[in-house]
Amino acid sequence: MLTHHMLMRPDTEAVDRLVRMALLEDAPWGDLTSQVLIAAAARVTAQLVAREEGVLSGEDVFAAAMSITDPAISVRFSVSDGEHFTKDTVLATVHGPAQSVLQAERVALNFAQRMSGIATLTAKYVAEVAGTKARIVDTRKTTPGLRLLERYAVRCGGGHNHRFSLSDAVLAKDNHLAILTANGTRDLTEALRAARATLPHTTHFEVEVDRADQIEAVLAAGVDTIMLDNFTTEQLRASMQQIAGRALVEASGGIMLPRIREIAATGVDIISVGALTHSVHSLDLGLDIQAAGLQ
Amino acid sequence: MLTHHMLMRPDTEAVDRLVRMALLEDAPWGDLTSQVLIAAAARVTAQLVAREEGVLSGEDVFAAAMSITDPAISVRFSVSDGEHFTKDTVLATVHGPAQSVLQAERVALNFAQRMSGIATLTAKYVAEVAGTKARIVDTRKTTPGLRLLERYAVRCGGGHNHRFSLSDAVLAKDNHLAILTANGTRDLTEALRAARATLPHTTHFEVEVDRADQIEAVLAAGVDTIMLDNFTTEQLRASMQQIAGRALVEASGGIMLPRIREIAATGVDIISVGALTHSVHSLDLGLDIQAAGLQ
Amino acid sequence: MLTHHMLMRPDTEAVDRLVRMALLEDAPWGDLTSQVLIAAAARVTAQLVAREEGVLSGEDVFAAAMSITDPAISVRFSVSDGEHFTKDTVLATVHGPAQSVLQAERVALNFAQRMSGIATLTAKYVAEVAGTKARIVDTRKTTPGLRLLERYAVRCGGGHNHRFSLSDAVLAKDNHLAILTANGTRDLTEALRAARATLPHTTHFEVEVDRADQIEAVLAAGVDTIMLDNFTTEQLRASMQQIAGRALVEASGGIMLPRIREIAATGVDIISVGALTHSVHSLDLGLDIQAAGLQ
Amino acid sequence: MLTHHMLMRPDTEAVDRLVRMALLEDAPWGDLTSQVLIAAAARVTAQLVAREEGVLSGEDVFAAAMSITDPAISVRFSVSDGEHFTKDTVLATVHGPAQSVLQAERVALNFAQRMSGIATLTAKYVAEVAGTKARIVDTRKTTPGLRLLERYAVRCGGGHNHRFSLSDAVLAKDNHLAILTANGTRDLTEALRAARATLPHTTHFEVEVDRADQIEAVLAAGVDTIMLDNFTTEQLRASMQQIAGRALVEASGGIMLPRIREIAATGVDIISVGALTHSVHSLDLGLDIQAAGLQ
Amino acid sequence: MLTHHMLMRPDTEAVDRLVRMALLEDAPWGDLTSQVLIAAAARVTAQLVAREEGVLSGEDVFAAAMSITDPAISVRFSVSDGEHFTKDTVLATVHGPAQSVLQAERVALNFAQRMSGIATLTAKYVAEVAGTKARIVDTRKTTPGLRLLERYAVRCGGGHNHRFSLSDAVLAKDNHLAILTANGTRDLTEALRAARATLPHTTHFEVEVDRADQIEAVLAAGVDTIMLDNFTTEQLRASMQQIAGRALVEASGGIMLPRIREIAATGVDIISVGALTHSVHSLDLGLDIQAAGLQ
Amino acid sequence: MLTHHMLMRPDTEAVDRLVRMALLEDAPWGDLTSQVLIAAAARVTAQLVAREEGVLSGEDVFAAAMSITDPAISVRFSVSDGEHFTKDTVLATVHGPAQSVLQAERVALNFAQRMSGIATLTAKYVAEVAGTKARIVDTRKTTPGLRLLERYAVRCGGGHNHRFSLSDAVLAKDNHLAILTANGTRDLTEALRAARATLPHTTHFEVEVDRADQIEAVLAAGVDTIMLDNFTTEQLRASMQQIAGRALVEASGGIMLPRIREIAATGVDIISVGALTHSVHSLDLGLDIQAAGLQ
Repeated sequence: MLTHHMLMRPDTEAVDRLVRMALLEDAPWGDLTSQVLIAAAARVTAQLVAREEGVLSGEDVFAAAMSITDPAISVRFSVSDGEHFTKDTVLATVHGPAQSVLQAERVALNFAQRMSGIATLTAKYVAEVAGTKARIVDTRKTTPGLRLLERYAVRCGGGHNHRFSLSDAVLAKDNHLAILTANGTRDLTEALRAARATLPHTTHFEVEVDRADQIEAVLAAGVDTIMLDNFTTEQLRASMQQIAGRALVEASGGIMLPRIREIAATGVDIISVGALTHSVHSLDLGLDIQAAGLQ
Repeated sequence: MLTHHMLMRPDTEAVDRLVRMALLEDAPWGDLTSQVLIAAAARVTAQLVAREEGVLSGEDVFAAAMSITDPAISVRFSVSDGEHFTKDTVLATVHGPAQSVLQAERVALNFAQRMSGIATLTAKYVAEVAGTKARIVDTRKTTPGLRLLERYAVRCGGGHNHRFSLSDAVLAKDNHLAILTANGTRDLTEALRAARATLPHTTHFEVEVDRADQIEAVLAAGVDTIMLDNFTTEQLRASMQQIAGRALVEASGGIMLPRIREIAATGVDIISVGALTHSVHSLDLGLDIQAAGLQ
Repeated sequence: MLTHHMLMRPDTEAVDRLVRMALLEDAPWGDLTSQVLIAAAARVTAQLVAREEGVLSGEDVFAAAMSITDPAISVRFSVSDGEHFTKDTVLATVHGPAQSVLQAERVALNFAQRMSGIATLTAKYVAEVAGTKARIVDTRKTTPGLRLLERYAVRCGGGHNHRFSLSDAVLAKDNHLAILTANGTRDLTEALRAARATLPHTTHFEVEVDRADQIEAVLAAGVDTIMLDNFTTEQLRASMQQIAGRALVEASGGIMLPRIREIAATGVDIISVGALTHSVHSLDLGLDIQAAGLQ
Repeated sequence: MLTHHMLMRPDTEAVDRLVRMALLEDAPWGDLTSQVLIAAAARVTAQLVAREEGVLSGEDVFAAAMSITDPAISVRFSVSDGEHFTKDTVLATVHGPAQSVLQAERVALNFAQRMSGIATLTAKYVAEVAGTKARIVDTRKTTPGLRLLERYAVRCGGGHNHRFSLSDAVLAKDNHLAILTANGTRDLTEALRAARATLPHTTHFEVEVDRADQIEAVLAAGVDTIMLDNFTTEQLRASMQQIAGRALVEASGGIMLPRIREIAATGVDIISVGALTHSVHSLDLGLDIQAAGLQ
Repeated sequence: MLTHHMLMRPDTEAVDRLVRMALLEDAPWGDLTSQVLIAAAARVTAQLVAREEGVLSGEDVFAAAMSITDPAISVRFSVSDGEHFTKDTVLATVHGPAQSVLQAERVALNFAQRMSGIATLTAKYVAEVAGTKARIVDTRKTTPGLRLLERYAVRCGGGHNHRFSLSDAVLAKDNHLAILTANGTRDLTEALRAARATLPHTTHFEVEVDRADQIEAVLAAGVDTIMLDNFTTEQLRASMQQIAGRALVEASGGIMLPRIREIAATGVDIISVGALTHSVHSLDLGLDIQAAGLQ
Repeated sequence: MLTHHMLMRPDTEAVDRLVRMALLEDAPWGDLTSQVLIAAAARVTAQLVAREEGVLSGEDVFAAAMSITDPAISVRFSVSDGEHFTKDTVLATVHGPAQSVLQAERVALNFAQRMSGIATLTAKYVAEVAGTKARIVDTRKTTPGLRLLERYAVRCGGGHNHRFSLSDAVLAKDNHLAILTANGTRDLTEALRAARATLPHTTHFEVEVDRADQIEAVLAAGVDTIMLDNFTTEQLRASMQQIAGRALVEASGGIMLPRIREIAATGVDIISVGALTHSVHSLDLGLDIQAAGLQ
């Protein structure tokens, strides 16, 4: 099981860059409303409240949105990333200048709601495969610019990550294989072997097949992981027997919640789920003002 | 009705910046897979195909992802942004170096699927209010960094935009009013009037109320738009009579598809829908390789 | 009247970015002179002194230039932005490492002199229209890159701002109308109406006319503000009667100080003055070293 | 004399960066007005016209503002940077998509008007010293961010540049000398000599004095240029005899046009004029639409 | 063997960014010398000549430095990256505006000399291990900012790359193990297993040992590669027998050319050599002007 | 001799930018190894130890790499930049969170080892010319992006700097002269004089000659420094007599350590040595963990 100190946090500098970008987008030349309506000396205490149950993700990002807007804002979380909470739970308390808290509110929520939405959905998939050896992993179908945070949110939900990008692992997909073998000019096994010999020894080598008859040619090249794409549960079961531990096995292809347990039961090592990040439901969180007063 | 030349395109420079950011995120030091498996001289023709029906958004972004990756790639769209298409429609044809097309594929799709998802959902809301004077508008609950594109996607679906950011219009919300009138130190009407007098004459002044008894104080300040938050349909109807054209009226607050027509029928001018952008279902689009060959 | 808490400050992050850019421009690889002539341990106390009378603008920017160069520098202002001061007034006291204070001096002064020059000029225009309802506003004729600060300086002088940019309000000028109606293909009122229907409800819609016979067609479209460009005082007076409150009225077009009161007396709501920012006289401020010593 | 091919142009990449920054500032998310009022297919021909006489500066910047906004815009100048022109001269012809030309207009003018204003003012100072050996030079009192362009504008007017920044030459001013000799701990000549010995041999070494009795101590250190600050014409004349060619001589300190010829006649090598850039009068240039039509 | 199409090129966008950064560093406000001495119309033909023998690396970077400085410059290489050349070989021919070629020369050479120096040194190591199965790999001891290019240069010399960064593979070094097992609180095998279970399945897991008695505990955790640091040849030989194919084996630790063949003969899979990049000898390449003339 | 307060430090902001760039390169999305193996609460004390003798350069950069990674890390140097140290000297002590120290280690070392390598090599050249008036200077053959730091390292070794870039001094080289006089169209002296007249008076003017017969024409133009390129010691001696103090003299051209004293003895003012920076040997420094424990 995922022990707590094992939840790898997103890089602080990277979080900082993303939050600054979002704050600039949302207030390129300041917050007109707060400036004309709220006294500079006014201070507030506010609570981040869960309006539905879920799993938290986004502590650091929420806090950064507040403190980058104004270092005078303090944020204290009472629930930690990766923890489940019920409706109406107070997740955090915010204290600071009213103008600044109101200016940062939407950006802080936009991040935390999206990330908690991903964590909550991931946790459902993870719960479904409990007791099997299958791990639920994300894909590259993430929001442009937010991959670092969305991968972290998947981890908060108990899921695992796939490769970060095109640069840190090989994943040869159907299109690569189609082009590679077009016109019959190259033997697949030979081509995969030559490719592998070129790569760093630290580069994981994974190949996707969409037909069982490709499996042997791929395994013969000595791949680390073989991805079975759009296989029926029955085909997966048969393929697991054929592969027999010669590579890790990843099941993929439009796999949704109802079918996940059945797939995990085939013994596959990895189930990748694009829906974890490509179709996010923002979790309903709100910021409630508790008290306001002059400094 | 929205005539075609009226679909305001996103700024070219801004699209360029966003696409470069996404390409860098997805391949910080190149695409290992394409480089080791695909010959540099290989070229492909591929089709962007709709795997479900919807409304297109993202022509420019999809094309930019391809051409920034490699200026030798050409993209020709057969459907335009804002147009409805059925399942299996060929939306665009891509031609160019195979390594580059495969490297750009995921980023191009991530943008176009997300934007078309927003356009498609928006179109459903817009269809629902047809024949009323209500316009469907977005909110600031957008994906951090992508607001420009998500607002455009809303327009592609026939929706309208609300303010872009905290800097270009005033929207005084419940939290502002609560702080403003805390300790009873300031009269609401007076405070709103003073605020307005400070602002540029070009700044739209909108105030949110969540109780009917706040309406007169707000109108007395001479606001441009009054937002009725979380009002029942019945309350909306009563308020419309009370307001009687003294300001534009926006209905807001968790308004989902089933209730939208009933709300529009009350005569409100604007219905804002956070769900248009905060919980996006990526539309299922795919890139199919048609033919490959050496140059 | 502009009460003090109403002076909207420029965004802290934006000020920071501009100051860093200016410091980098002025010392891309350090300040040779201070490094070779001043001991690292030397500290100074210096005063920012007004060498002519004026209105202050630039507190935050002056202080940021000092503290970004060296966090060990402290700056205390004895006059606030928006306040009038006489010749020889000590505006601020600076204390810190001598090398750093001398390195930051020119950039800090360049900002503060320019901004105070704008504030001082604006205050003259504002004083001239005292007692009328006309507000003095700036234009987009600002220094490239410094619009945020120059608009703030106008506010310090008691003026108001016009729209920030092409993105946050519509202002249809003579060139737009000329192209729009070229070849007689489109009816002006109809074109304006269609345009407005496309835009967010928060977008202010202003149209410039340079002949009285255009006024009715423009008002018929329901604009928010009508700009009367290069009208004589007599023409302005006549037009005010014709418009009769159907829109805000802005007078513009090379309006200089001597004529401003006469124009205000016609009852226009807004007088825009390009000269506030396009031809700035830097106010004469200097930094005088009071005391120096080793740490 | 300054022959024409000797007019050093600003770096193309740097111009590009500045223009992009200004365009982004003026249209962070596009030009609403042009998009809703002008058909995408409309094209215009326009002329850049001088509304007052002057000296041109800003060809490249004006053209870059147009072509970066839209590569389909062409700009042809009929007057070159550094040339004098009379009122009503057509300086350039612009042709391209109407939406884009109108979007770029203000930024292009803001640059060209400011730069031509500087060139025109500089040319007046330069004409005044004709026949003497004195060169008119700028100072570091430039607009933050625009130093590169403002220095170029000075050259267009026939002036010369002083050092670019704190990093490329030494200029020890009164404040440096005051701190250096505070408490009598260091001998001035010795301190200057030690400083010089530390610096690259390519670093110009200039020292400012504000009293004649400092001259010998400074010259004894072997400086390249001695700056006489706020000297009367009589004092300048006496000092020239004393210095007798042992260093270049720069006169500085609030030197305005009426006094410039008298100062040049004393035989000084350099006269620095802060007013060239710190108090710029934007030259009145306008863009007139000549013809418009659909493509 | 490394076939030619297998030489993975550095990402075009990344090369572009690095070259722009270097050009800006070397000419922040243009090239004074070329501007004042060379006529704008002058054109040159020049040759990139090898002043010593070596292996080429840097085609794209050299060409980019020229073409980013001025798109009018053309560069044609007659030797390709990865090819060996003798002294006096003409590697490339450059043609274009003289001002621009001279401005770009030093930056273009700085890149190509450094990269070719790395490729040439790598090729010596690679030649030394010919006939063994050992691959020569680089380390993270690269020049800050230039890792992408230096890794490519290693590939040009026939070497392989290790992981790119701390983010794309695990390499637990002596310091990690020391901290991990400090105070005896954790079992090494168990800790490594738990770590691996947390990571993406695509993350390569390598552990360094500096004593033979650590090998079994590390192998028991199921690592992908075991690094033997500072082992004598005799110790390496014994360890290879002990490991017996249970993991890839990397030899490291100050391994220089004279000892490399002996180490390769022990059967290790990988030999990492920090000296490939941490102590680079720039290869002597020069740009010779062949002909100059006016356009 | 270089007194201590005269060691000009690199600009703090610039160091910050370079270190951030390097940290991002080395851990674009965090340090996997430390995160999965080291407890967040673990703290370490570590020492920066010299594994060979040398001269230190890089205090600020090393410390910045640590403190930017984590402000909770403290670094205390016991040796200062510019000081010589023997093998096994403890140069600095580091204390802070173990995860962060290990993440920053390689980047901190990469900078300090490279810079100290340059300082150490420079010190050897400087020692060799002791007692002569010649100064050892660097060239533009620096690592792209690191010029600021490499120039500082040269200063730490007791060397001096040449010009920073193409923008801050003129150095006309053989290629410039060849193009300038191609086709015999321009007289060299005249061309140099005209160029100088165009430049700021603060711009140092240096010309390289590679034949003695060019010397008079160059001196006649009044240059500041004449560079004698690839002259034999005998030719240098003869040229020094001919030049007789009419300009500073710089010897250059592949000058290595064994010949340096003989060249200095000819009385040249400056000896430029490309090897100081183009072929750097990283000094062997290491970070040794002293103690680890939980917080």
